[in-house]
Amino acid sequence: MSIKPIEFKDGRLRMIDQRLLPTKEVWLEYTDYQEVAEAIKTMVVRGAPAIGVAAAFGAAFGARDIETVGFEDFLREWEQVCAELAATRPTAVNLFWALDRMKACAVRHQEQGLAEVKRLLLAEAQEIGREDEEINRTMGAHGEPLIPTGARILTHCNAGALATGGYGTALGVIRAAAAAGKVTRVYADETRPFLQGSRLTAWELHKDGIPVTLICDNMAGYLMSRGEIDCVIVGADRIAANGDTANKIGTYTVAVLAREHGLPFYVAAPISTLDLSLADGSLIPIEERDRREVTHVGDKQLAPDGIDVRNPAFDVTPARLITAIITERGVVKGDYLRGLRALAQEK
Amino acid sequence: MSIKPIEFKDGRLRMIDQRLLPTKEVWLEYTDYQEVAEAIKTMVVRGAPAIGVAAAFGAAFGARDIETVGFEDFLREWEQVCAELAATRPTAVNLFWALDRMKACAVRHQEQGLAEVKRLLLAEAQEIGREDEEINRTMGAHGEPLIPTGARILTHCNAGALATGGYGTALGVIRAAAAAGKVTRVYADETRPFLQGSRLTAWELHKDGIPVTLICDNMAGYLMSRGEIDCVIVGADRIAANGDTANKIGTYTVAVLAREHGLPFYVAAPISTLDLSLADGSLIPIEERDRREVTHVGDKQLAPDGIDVRNPAFDVTPARLITAIITERGVVKGDYLRGLRALAQEK
Repeated sequence: MSIKPIEFKDGRLRMIDQRLLPTKEVWLEYTDYQEVAEAIKTMVVRGAPAIGVAAAFGAAFGARDIETVGFEDFLREWEQVCAELAATRPTAVNLFWALDRMKACAVRHQEQGLAEVKRLLLAEAQEIGREDEEINRTMGAHGEPLIPTGARILTHCNAGALATGGYGTALGVIRAAAAAGKVTRVYADETRPFLQGSRLTAWELHKDGIPVTLICDNMAGYLMSRGEIDCVIVGADRIAANGDTANKIGTYTVAVLAREHGLPFYVAAPISTLDLSLADGSLIPIEERDRREVTHVGDKQLAPDGIDVRNPAFDVTPARLITAIITERGVVKGDYLRGLRALAQEK
Repeated sequence: MSIKPIEFKDGRLRMIDQRLLPTKEVWLEYTDYQEVAEAIKTMVVRGAPAIGVAAAFGAAFGARDIETVGFEDFLREWEQVCAELAATRPTAVNLFWALDRMKACAVRHQEQGLAEVKRLLLAEAQEIGREDEEINRTMGAHGEPLIPTGARILTHCNAGALATGGYGTALGVIRAAAAAGKVTRVYADETRPFLQGSRLTAWELHKDGIPVTLICDNMAGYLMSRGEIDCVIVGADRIAANGDTANKIGTYTVAVLAREHGLPFYVAAPISTLDLSLADGSLIPIEERDRREVTHVGDKQLAPDGIDVRNPAFDVTPARLITAIITERGVVKGDYLRGLRALAQEK
């Protein structure tokens, strides 16, 4: 039973503070949208699908607290709320997808009166969270056949239960493969600078009893060169129409290494991660985060004062390096442009 | 004027404690060989050439403190000392090279009496340190023409003044190129887990006024994919007869990335780094270090209790990925087997 990082109970959103894992399990409670926006920005919650779920709750809270009377006035004010939530993180598209879905819900039900719209928005946020876990289980079932028996699987960052409504995308496929008895070991890249691999992936797999070994990001090539990795599976923050995939910084390097060693490189992501409006990955905005993430770990200073730093939070893996993209509607290989569009159009 | 990490003064060896950089500059003093062995093992001093220099002083101290009368008895006891020093780190060959050179010095002068042998051993250790800096300056002059004007250079780990008797190997070439006005910027991989890039390379280049930007190891691929790197230069811990090169973990990954992006990948190392007794890199022993280097930074715990960890300290870059090897006797390209052997045989 994997952890759910986001719960809604008694009118409050509860989220585990992912910045404090793995040494402390602290749950924080949220009741207004500004707090939720801040939690997304500061990475209390992170992972593209989880950000989408959290933002949906933020939007529902924002709607609830608007005091205008007519739908038009409500919508004008609420769009400001949604814009603030949208401005928290630029790369993961699930954030925008979730907010669009919330807006569509409001517009669809506008005739039912504002009180009902507000009630339905809260229900929609809950539904997005619930669906996300279901989607991940379906994705796991689609992806599991790709994993060989006895697999030693490398993953980067955390695309697990903690990054989603539950179960996980990349780790969902790994959980499904583990349930089928196929997983010998998962190698988790620690994923500098935010250490989602050591703090989150290692923690949630260890908790679930799936054998996991932690490595530094720069060790994956060494293990591959010695034949100690069979395949790679990662999540995604945004997938362009041609299959180019933005994911946590370092993913591109792992994909290049996988290709060099003839290993399959899989991306697991829900349809909500697709952004077919972008022709290719060069159009995906890449967030650069605070220098302190690189120069410090907690209060510990790692670098000299005043040093220049780059801190891109994501990179883009070109579709040519991706063996298959696993979604809840099936697996796409080869012609991503056609395959992804076809899946997106399914109902 | 670059720093010298190892000084000999008033009968004492002074070494800057590289574990405390960049936030504290603490010099430690050593007067016996066991302390020196411990300093190498615990990485007070690190970097293949610097380890060689430190071990030479350790051997000289050990010789000085032996109280036997005849040379045979002295040698028997002293070989124990040298064996203890040799057992500190398995991968860098300069350690064994320096100890062999010390042994040859003792044997060569055995007729002069033990007191004189002991004096000459201390002089030999000082000479090894002095020569190392000279060697690096010559290497810099050989390597400088390879660096293009306006170069944005990536380096991994610390192959700088701090890793040597002074000036540096890879950073020596960079210093020579900077003196020639050719260096626009150096990108320093932070180099997990021991962070020699953020703590040492960033510190010494910043101190020298060479523009340096710190990145996490997993960001190099991103920068290359955006055309922000022109070439790569790294040091080496051991080079096999065919040119395969052991260097800090992560070097292999950088070499694969450089090849993927069509960028030159240079290794700068003194002739003492060659191990022509090994046909190829698969024969180089790779040290695995303590798990705590990966799970903690200082006292800060990054990973769950009891998690499995791998911590190889080095990896091997195959010769086919190396554009050229820069030594103090010249630059080798292409046929490393022949080229390295020819340089090794020069006097």
